[in-house]
Amino acid sequence: MKIHNFSAGPSILPAEVFQEASQAVIDFNNTGLSLLEMSHRSKEFDAVLKEALQLVAELLHLPENYKPIFVSGGASTQFALVPMNLLKEDGKAAYLNTGTWSDKAIKEAKALGNVDVIASSKEDNYTHIPKNYQVPKDASYLHLTTNNTVFGTQFRKIPATSVPIVADMSSDIFSYDLDIDKFGLIYAGAQKNMGPAGTTLVIVREDLLGKVDRHIPSMFDYRTHIKKNSAFNTPPVFPIYVSMLNLRWVKKTGGVKAMEKRSIRRSELIYGEIDRNPLFHGTTAKEDRSRMNATFVLNKDYESLENDFLEVCKNAGISGIKGHRSVGGFRASMYNALPLESVEVLVDVMRDLEANKG
Amino acid sequence: MKIHNFSAGPSILPAEVFQEASQAVIDFNNTGLSLLEMSHRSKEFDAVLKEALQLVAELLHLPENYKPIFVSGGASTQFALVPMNLLKEDGKAAYLNTGTWSDKAIKEAKALGNVDVIASSKEDNYTHIPKNYQVPKDASYLHLTTNNTVFGTQFRKIPATSVPIVADMSSDIFSYDLDIDKFGLIYAGAQKNMGPAGTTLVIVREDLLGKVDRHIPSMFDYRTHIKKNSAFNTPPVFPIYVSMLNLRWVKKTGGVKAMEKRSIRRSELIYGEIDRNPLFHGTTAKEDRSRMNATFVLNKDYESLENDFLEVCKNAGISGIKGHRSVGGFRASMYNALPLESVEVLVDVMRDLEANKG
Repeated sequence: MKIHNFSAGPSILPAEVFQEASQAVIDFNNTGLSLLEMSHRSKEFDAVLKEALQLVAELLHLPENYKPIFVSGGASTQFALVPMNLLKEDGKAAYLNTGTWSDKAIKEAKALGNVDVIASSKEDNYTHIPKNYQVPKDASYLHLTTNNTVFGTQFRKIPATSVPIVADMSSDIFSYDLDIDKFGLIYAGAQKNMGPAGTTLVIVREDLLGKVDRHIPSMFDYRTHIKKNSAFNTPPVFPIYVSMLNLRWVKKTGGVKAMEKRSIRRSELIYGEIDRNPLFHGTTAKEDRSRMNATFVLNKDYESLENDFLEVCKNAGISGIKGHRSVGGFRASMYNALPLESVEVLVDVMRDLEANKG
Repeated sequence: MKIHNFSAGPSILPAEVFQEASQAVIDFNNTGLSLLEMSHRSKEFDAVLKEALQLVAELLHLPENYKPIFVSGGASTQFALVPMNLLKEDGKAAYLNTGTWSDKAIKEAKALGNVDVIASSKEDNYTHIPKNYQVPKDASYLHLTTNNTVFGTQFRKIPATSVPIVADMSSDIFSYDLDIDKFGLIYAGAQKNMGPAGTTLVIVREDLLGKVDRHIPSMFDYRTHIKKNSAFNTPPVFPIYVSMLNLRWVKKTGGVKAMEKRSIRRSELIYGEIDRNPLFHGTTAKEDRSRMNATFVLNKDYESLENDFLEVCKNAGISGIKGHRSVGGFRASMYNALPLESVEVLVDVMRDLEANKG
């Protein structure tokens, strides 16, 4: 049976990426060696790393002064490294609290310096993105999480501010065209739109670095990795390789503009059904709905159908549809590689449930 | 042509590990999903993580109070995290400087606290392991690099001291039985004897933690990962999975005692030839020779044969034999999965060069 993978991450990648990655584990480019047993200093892996970095720059139209690097440790590590590298000892940083991951980023930053949480939707269980706030002009940066995987909200417009924006884009990078000038730093764990778990992309405007006085261990200083082209030490070879394959696919498929079109079609289809179907409703403010993660629940009168719905989903090959424990209900994660067909199957199942209710 | 992979790391793993890992990239355990697209919270990956940790504990005979965790960022990250977690603000740590990696570990630790380099072979270009030194009884720990990949030396006996030893075992873990009681903490990048690049094993005696006053970001605090069984955030799924497969192979092949026997046979064979063959000599003190990395050069009269030797190696399918740039000459890295046959082929080539010289 074909599986429709709505997993929130690690998540679906194109089948051709899996095929090529699988082959590389046995024999990489007819070298007679597995990619897993090759030196990270080999010309073969050097070419992979260069192509991956080049694809990032090309797909996101990065100007020369924006440096992409592959590092380790996930976005959770960046929660600490961002203030360590960018927040001056006597300065402050502005944060928007829009979900679980923003909240964790704030906690880590507070231990390192002065943090001003300028707006939060925490008290509303993060069902919307805060809108009316002032960004202090003297902040070193404004931190935000562009897409909130757990709650299903997304900044559909990146705020305009004179302060450089630092964005956790773990769950929506490469899904739309960026106005890169707004950003000072972008970071993203690979395991949604970019590749498998095990590497993290950081893109940083180089002039923002070297302004803090605190000691930064070599591995935590972005300049180390920029200088060494992401090969200061042994990088996570296979996760970077699979990310490169996936970025090749994004490029071949039409780049981030094409990804955005696909995400619009998928999300319009699912939200259309959520709004139409009398059994379900969405859990977030409509204007802040995420194109990556659609969160929805059964209406009160139909809550007893939860297990039935999960069962029919399973029978239709739908995987990873259960909502995060902090929200409940259901979550359809629709990253770049998810075919529209999978959303169609999900919508059919929702309609069938409606038709057969009681 | 069969390749004999002497790469210093990432390095050879068993062929059956590559086969199984390759299959998992297409379809993991008949789930219909690639391992790369499965949630790290799925019961399937949870079982992988548990088995990997269990195999570490079993193969190294870890007592209950020694906690293994999988983290990210390589040994280079541990150079900073070890003092961050273990070195008290008013305390000191003792370090032995036995090679490139020790030297880097010392540099990172010095930025965080009082470091006493109690012995060093740096002035002799690290051709031997220092022997006569006193470990200060009030040191928080004694740090050493058990095997020096670049220079080809190894602690053939772990020093006896009342201070807990912190060991970078990146290149010889799982290659011999440990007297675990001597150690307070062990860390190892996966990409030699354990698995592919992309994860790092840390084993820590739990009572050593929580003694420092400095702020430790969540991701850098070992307690975070112990408490969450290495799944505080999304771990590097595939590198951990391949490590688990490799540790299964180590267990099936007879455990670390069998790995040690294999390493003795391989290293006796290569060092025997280095010592016998009038064209070559070893670069390190004989009593400190590494069983993992044999470093050797052509004798002065035969230095012009260097390119010839590399050429005949290549023709025999020998890969990764060129020495590190800081030592020159040749390096045969012989990690757990390297068959004795590969060393036999190398020895044959060395003999052929001798027979055909001039």
